[in-house]
Formats: sequence, C-alpha cells, structure tokens
Amino acid sequence: MKPQLDCIPCLVKNAFNVANLSTDDEDLKREILNRVLQQMASLDWDRPPTFTAWQSYQIASEISGNPNPYQAEKQNSISLAWKLLEALKKDYGNKLDDFTQRLKLAIAGNVLDYSIYGDLNLDLAMEVIVQALEKPIDNDAISRLKQEIDNAGSILYLLDNAGESVYDSFFIEPFKHKVTLGVRGLPASNDVTYEDLEPSGLDGIPVVDNATNLPGVIPEFSPPAMLDALKNADLIIAKGQGNFESLNETDYPIVFLFMAKCPAVCRVINAAPQSLQVLFNQP
Amino acid sequence: MKPQLDCIPCLVKNAFNVANLSTDDEDLKREILNRVLQQMASLDWDRPPTFTAWQSYQIASEISGNPNPYQAEKQNSISLAWKLLEALKKDYGNKLDDFTQRLKLAIAGNVLDYSIYGDLNLDLAMEVIVQALEKPIDNDAISRLKQEIDNAGSILYLLDNAGESVYDSFFIEPFKHKVTLGVRGLPASNDVTYEDLEPSGLDGIPVVDNATNLPGVIPEFSPPAMLDALKNADLIIAKGQGNFESLNETDYPIVFLFMAKCPAVCRVINAAPQSLQVLFNQP
Repeated sequence: MKPQLDCIPCLVKNAFNVANLSTDDEDLKREILNRVLQQMASLDWDRPPTFTAWQSYQIASEISGNPNPYQAEKQNSISLAWKLLEALKKDYGNKLDDFTQRLKLAIAGNVLDYSIYGDLNLDLAMEVIVQALEKPIDNDAISRLKQEIDNAGSILYLLDNAGESVYDSFFIEPFKHKVTLGVRGLPASNDVTYEDLEPSGLDGIPVVDNATNLPGVIPEFSPPAMLDALKNADLIIAKGQGNFESLNETDYPIVFLFMAKCPAVCRVINAAPQSLQVLFNQP
Repeated sequence: MKPQLDCIPCLVKNAFNVANLSTDDEDLKREILNRVLQQMASLDWDRPPTFTAWQSYQIASEISGNPNPYQAEKQNSISLAWKLLEALKKDYGNKLDDFTQRLKLAIAGNVLDYSIYGDLNLDLAMEVIVQALEKPIDNDAISRLKQEIDNAGSILYLLDNAGESVYDSFFIEPFKHKVTLGVRGLPASNDVTYEDLEPSGLDGIPVVDNATNLPGVIPEFSPPAMLDALKNADLIIAKGQGNFESLNETDYPIVFLFMAKCPAVCRVINAAPQSLQVLFNQP
C-alpha cells in the first residue's frame, strides 16, 4: 500500500511514542524526533508506510541505544491475553471450538494493542474482545479460507502483535503441523520476535524472520529465507495492518486477517472502521 | 511557552489539516507536508509552538495559493454561535446577566472549535456549552478579574477563534468603551481577523492586529501598533491557548482566559484536561 497523506501525522505520532519509550533523556527524544522529521521530509511515496516506520525504529534505537523499547508492553500483552483466554473459555467454551470463532478471536486479538489501550485491564479487555467476536465477518471468505487451509500442504503464518499471538496459537492448533511462522528479526513496536513465541504457546513450530525491525514483510528488504518461505508456501496467512500494507500489492497467495483500524487502510479497502477483515489478494 | 515533545505530532496533525483544507491537489498537499516536516526538523525549542504553526500556515498558503483555507469554517462557527446564544438566552436568560456566567461562556465558546467537532450541530453544541457552563472555575481569580476590569482605564482584548468571538462580544458589552481588540493580521487557522468582527457583533470597537498569520501574539514578531497596545493597556485579556503559549512568559499585565485543551498546556499549568482557566501572569 502506498502511503496516504494521513499516514504522515500518524507516523510522526508513532515516532513520538517510540522516542518516549526508548529513553528518559529529553535531549535524546528531541534528537530522535528531529532525525525522523528530516527523514520523513523526503518521503518515498512509492514505499509502504511500514518502510517509514522502520526508519523511525532504526533512528530511535541508534540514538537511544535501546534496542527493545516495547519489551515490557509485549510481556504484559501476552500475559493479559492468556488471562482473557481462560475467562473466555469459561463463558464461551463451546463457541470457541468453532473455526469462525477462533478466527475471529485471532483477528479481534489485534484490538488488544497495548499502545492504544495503555491502561488495559481484564474487564475492559474482555468487553473489547467480546464486542469484536460479535461483529459481522465475510462468511464466503471464511469458507474459502477453511478450504484453502485444508488443501494447503504448507502455510506461512506471518505474525503481528505480541498478545494477539496467543490467539494465533489457539487458531492454528488444528493445522499447526503444516505451518511455518513469520516473525520480525529485531524488535519492531510490539510485534512478535523469537523471544515472544514460547510465552505465546507458539514454540516447536518452524520459524522464519524478516531479518530487521521492519514492522511488516516487504519483499525488497527480506532475507533469502523469508523470500523462499513466501515463494514456497501454498498459502500465506498475514496478520495485521503492517503485513497488509507491506504485501497487499504482491501476487503471493495471501489472505490478510486484520482489524481495519486506520482511516487510510479503511479507505483503500473501502471498509468500515474497526471491521474484521478476511481479504484474499488473488481472485 | 516552550514547545513540549508532544507538540510535535500535534503540530504535524495541524499542518495536515491545513494542507487538506488549502487545496484539493494531492501533489501540492504532499509538497506542503514535506516542506513543513523539513522546517520542523530544525525546530527552535526556545520559540512557542505558535511560531511553528505560523511557519506551516505560511508554507501552506505559499504552495497552495489559498490565503484563507478556514474561511467557510469561520463563517459556520459564527453563525452557529449566534443560534446557540439565542437558545441559551431562552433557557438561561437570568443566569447570563451574571459576570461569571458571561465569562464562562466566553471561555467555554472555545470548545466550539469547528476543526475538532467537524459535524457540529445545534444540539451537540448546546450540550457541550451547557456542560462547560457547569464546570468549576477559580472564583478568587474571577473576583480579581472583575476588579481589574473595573479599575482599568484601557483594556487590550486579544481574540482567539471565530465563533467564540460572538460570546466575547457578549462578555465585553458592559465595558467595551475601554476595550481595544487584538486580531490576527492575516487568516491563521480559524482565528478572528478583521472580516470576522462585524458578523461577531464586535464592530465599532478600536482594533489592532499582529500583522501576520501567526496564531498568537509573540512580541518579537509583532508590529509597532501591537507592541504599543501591549505596553499601554492597563489590563490585557488574552483568549485561547495560542495567545497563552505566545505570551505566558512575558511580564505584561495579562489575564489568560482559556479552556486547557492539550496535554502539553495542562502539564505546564498543572491543570485538568478541559478545565476553564482564569490565569494571571502577575501575582
């Protein structure tokens, strides 16, 4: 996806958040923001917004010396997601055996974004998730997805946020023997890296990474192992907006699962804000 | 007020809004944002945020050729404010004779910011204003203000948004014979310029302007007439955050009337969000 005009204020806000989490030193925070603004002033309007976010993470990490500013948030998100899953199993036990409900949970998990709900507690999180589970979803796309998963010999599953990853683990359980997971190579926002797999219940599954702290998978910047994984998978399941923005104009056999959160993405796919998306990039 | 780190994303959002209102040409919008980002990358951290906003307005106006992107919003705000005042007079007639209530209305008018409530209608506006009228306010500061107004031979009243200006007119009615109004010299956001005075009921009162589209009054960039007005007034009443940010570190005899809207200002004055402020800059 090409950057839209409204990506600019949002990317600056993102850089501000990263600067704030990366260091307590006000001078370093300013230096990070100045460098990010400088970089963004010569924005390449042909590269997805995740490319620009990547530059911000690199700048923040280089100037602050902090390679993992979201570490605490990721741990909190994962631990909250587990508590929530236990509570959900109690109330929605039978419902959660169903493919559609598990899928919805994997998509809805995306709302548990610690950077949005800073003071997320169990009750609020439960409310947000239950609302998401009751949202409409494209049932034809779900039927197609179920069939493609059944038919696929190999599936590349590109993860998004830590926390959400707990529900990814729950969703892929029935077909995990054919899954390879895709993660970020270095900490990028609150996205899943190797260290988050075991606490998310995703250990023991083959993994490939994008080699960097780019918050998505842009083929042009992907290492050979990731390119092989993209090329050889019968089906690619890409979670979250970052993977969508990075891959939606490629012709790999991808289904994007995400909650349409930002106005720019909603406009591009003509969707309502906060809607649950199951989008194939091939007819 | 010095810029805070969170002024940066906010100033970029402001530039995005101005770019969007200034032109329909996507290339020009991008050019505006690129130039603004470039300028902001070498931010002068000693100058108030209004200085940076000013640069954005200049860039937007220069690139788009549109000198008054907020013209329609200003007219709508003024017309809405009049309708609301009529409705308020019906329901709160007696109450509005009172100095405190008129003052609160003049401050609360600041919430009718068309750029915040894009689809503001009469019912919503009424609700917002009535809520604001019921908020607590510093009664000692109000007593002092009343006395200073009574004692002053000359008052410089620095206006803020168009729309809010209708309530300024209502507030200053009893003492308007000693008032000189301060406006922006060129259109800056939805701030009052000469053309908005008559429709706001503020005609027939002496006026001085800041010569530019700077959304505040920074002495360093003010023309001689404004500097004389600042120097010679017994009392300066400065409306809105823009005037506060620009003048709060000066030692003119100023009372700042505004709603504390942004986190940075709230932090600087240690105030609750959306609280009504009557702040003297001298003991």
